[in-house]
Amino acid sequence: MDPIVEALRAIVGDNGVLCAADLASRSAGALRADNLRARALVRPAGTGEVAAVLRWCHQRRLPVVPQGGLTGLVRGADAGPGEIILSLERMRAIEAIDPQQRTATVQAGVTLQALQEAVEAQGLVYPLDLGARGSATLGGTAATNAGGTRVLRYGMTRDMVLGLEAVLADGTVVSALHPLIKNNTGYDLKQLFIGSEGTLGVITRLVLRLREKPLATHTTLLAAPDFDAVAGLLRHLDRALGGALSSFEVMWQSFYRLVTTPPARSLPPLGQEHPFYVLVEAQGAHREADGQRFEAALEAALAQGLLSDAVLARSDADAQAFWALRDDVEQVMRHGTPLGFDISLPIAAMDGYVRQVQQLLLAETRAHRLYVFGHLGDGNLHLVVTLPHADLARLKPRIEALVYAELRARGGSVSAEHGIGLEKKPWLSITRSPPERALMGAIKRTLDPAGILNPGKLLDGGAP
Amino acid sequence: MDPIVEALRAIVGDNGVLCAADLASRSAGALRADNLRARALVRPAGTGEVAAVLRWCHQRRLPVVPQGGLTGLVRGADAGPGEIILSLERMRAIEAIDPQQRTATVQAGVTLQALQEAVEAQGLVYPLDLGARGSATLGGTAATNAGGTRVLRYGMTRDMVLGLEAVLADGTVVSALHPLIKNNTGYDLKQLFIGSEGTLGVITRLVLRLREKPLATHTTLLAAPDFDAVAGLLRHLDRALGGALSSFEVMWQSFYRLVTTPPARSLPPLGQEHPFYVLVEAQGAHREADGQRFEAALEAALAQGLLSDAVLARSDADAQAFWALRDDVEQVMRHGTPLGFDISLPIAAMDGYVRQVQQLLLAETRAHRLYVFGHLGDGNLHLVVTLPHADLARLKPRIEALVYAELRARGGSVSAEHGIGLEKKPWLSITRSPPERALMGAIKRTLDPAGILNPGKLLDGGAP
Repeated sequence: MDPIVEALRAIVGDNGVLCAADLASRSAGALRADNLRARALVRPAGTGEVAAVLRWCHQRRLPVVPQGGLTGLVRGADAGPGEIILSLERMRAIEAIDPQQRTATVQAGVTLQALQEAVEAQGLVYPLDLGARGSATLGGTAATNAGGTRVLRYGMTRDMVLGLEAVLADGTVVSALHPLIKNNTGYDLKQLFIGSEGTLGVITRLVLRLREKPLATHTTLLAAPDFDAVAGLLRHLDRALGGALSSFEVMWQSFYRLVTTPPARSLPPLGQEHPFYVLVEAQGAHREADGQRFEAALEAALAQGLLSDAVLARSDADAQAFWALRDDVEQVMRHGTPLGFDISLPIAAMDGYVRQVQQLLLAETRAHRLYVFGHLGDGNLHLVVTLPHADLARLKPRIEALVYAELRARGGSVSAEHGIGLEKKPWLSITRSPPERALMGAIKRTLDPAGILNPGKLLDGGAP
Repeated sequence: MDPIVEALRAIVGDNGVLCAADLASRSAGALRADNLRARALVRPAGTGEVAAVLRWCHQRRLPVVPQGGLTGLVRGADAGPGEIILSLERMRAIEAIDPQQRTATVQAGVTLQALQEAVEAQGLVYPLDLGARGSATLGGTAATNAGGTRVLRYGMTRDMVLGLEAVLADGTVVSALHPLIKNNTGYDLKQLFIGSEGTLGVITRLVLRLREKPLATHTTLLAAPDFDAVAGLLRHLDRALGGALSSFEVMWQSFYRLVTTPPARSLPPLGQEHPFYVLVEAQGAHREADGQRFEAALEAALAQGLLSDAVLARSDADAQAFWALRDDVEQVMRHGTPLGFDISLPIAAMDGYVRQVQQLLLAETRAHRLYVFGHLGDGNLHLVVTLPHADLARLKPRIEALVYAELRARGGSVSAEHGIGLEKKPWLSITRSPPERALMGAIKRTLDPAGILNPGKLLDGGAP
């Protein structure tokens, strides 16, 4: 028996630790072909056990990799054979839902979907939403500052966390479970842990802000004649809908054609000849009155030349069909092996950026395809380049370099919502300056001086 | 000539430095009877000069107090005779307004009002608003994470800052002027500086998020039969107005009577017999359609017993009159010397809290009055206790103790939006736990190891 496994079992019980051999059959995560590797996987049942495990590892300088639902896309929770995985999977209690304060207090291992379903009965929503909702944990969404499809209206996870409890590398429990919207009493420490990808502490509990459940949703799919019209539509609809706009998802033509051409499941609700398509959603309070406003806003957009065609969802099934084509990203696998990017940049720079990337890709290879779609309202585009599998290894570094280098001059970000992990660490300097990276390093050393927490993710360095 | 003044003049020019004698006629700030004191006041003209001044002071371990518009209420920018004031008053450039990205890039010394006026021409708003808008600087509102009257809809300053540039104590310029809504590339360093009251760095430039200018505003003053009805109204209106609710300001009866009784300027728009009054504002896109929705929501509230009476603003003048009575806080001076509090707590605990404070105050003195009002939608109450001036010095510590102690058990905050400064530092431990305060101290020592930045504010310690 591995003495480390034995020692961890003394802290969390026999059932709380899996040894290296137990992990061979556990998947390394969503969209991954490999299985977990680690010295051990430890599953504390509460904050006290998390603290005890970290204290023990800290004393021995053992590296610890916190894991949530393993739905991240940047290898931010990968562990090596010498590392200890700390999984929050046994901490799945929804401790309280307060309908008056409109807050939920949860343990970090609760899944996003479990919370969404639990609050619905109270006429409330937790407005974070993303495809991985069934597996993604609330701790993981906080540690990665998850975004999703309604950031335009509700912000990112950072905007939904009122308070949290985290355990530092040395086992210190920092309890800041404030349920308050306003609390100007010194440094807002929760911000350190949100989006730091498990490198500064392990989030164990959260107080999350809930919102009133919208009483009516209106959805439409639009076609636009050019990118300026798309940008104009965003401002027009944001203004005309008076705060109700909740999604503004754009699809470049190649992506729209891909997801509306067999064998894709969806038929094209609008002809495939338009350069841009936009899926628009508004959430309000009155089915009829909001519907009239929504249609009036679209008519005004048509009159201003901001759209060329539109189809309204007349039922929930229609709306689901529009979302289904937007979400049918796996179609990119049809024409090669995909290389995905999650970038953000100023809206004014987007059209030129995509054209430039397309041109530079052509100079590298004519065997590729480029699909572009994303959350335009947040400045966030997803680019997918597909390549013949045989070319992937050779071309990947060159394509990454050109996609990211073009962002630098435009003030863009190499990761809008997916994070850095191991996958994007080589490109961090495109977006963050040397003084920013130096300050990040200083904060890492302050909170985790031995470098045991998720070593090598996001920043270089780790346990000596 | 003071050699320190001379040396600073060599950095920023003769016109850039005021010596101790020059300061004797400069007010110490809004609502202050005293004048500034300091060894010198230095006014850099740009980020480079801020960096040079800080580098020079850091080498000599000279304490530096950053100052904005001096409209804070917690003595967060007070300087002593041995300290150097760093004023951003010469950094007043609005560098860019981007109507498509909906961002403004500004120097920190720009006033809130100057930006509000500059963006209006573009059909945009910078939604932060507060009474001191004419003097408060954007750097100051960021350093203190200012709140104001529309937090319910738009959040606090923290939610409006996309990027910033700050100078650390040693003169390092950390440029993080990202114009992006989504940027998950490592630690979100701007959060460190926002709300840290000038103790971690000097904010020199900001990229701020602008919003579409609302096309219609509806305002009403309501009376409610009890606190449960007030809390119910908040949820009801938030739901029924579908995202348009922008203010929900509550007034307890004693405050309403005060501001609607001569010599106060306002007449009572509603009778003075109700226990609670609420000023409600909704911002949307259509005067007529929003008005119908607004009235329907109020009728439904009446039918549910959530309100006892209501008067709608039929004109901008009406709306301004409702706001004028809410904002006529200076009436509290009529019946004694005021002692003000800016607290937040869960809504469910508010009514009991106010009753308990009232009872404990009676045990201390019968010569007081208690006025309560605030941003209920954000959980933020302002309490004002007035006392005979002769009793103030004796009773102040006891009244502070009872107001704050009652917050501890209820998970409340000793400062919702005003910050800590010197004024509330003795009470910080009511809201922030020992591990939180220890972590704040560790971050302070990491960013400002010599302790020269705004020493003694927020946290103990400072320049050795």
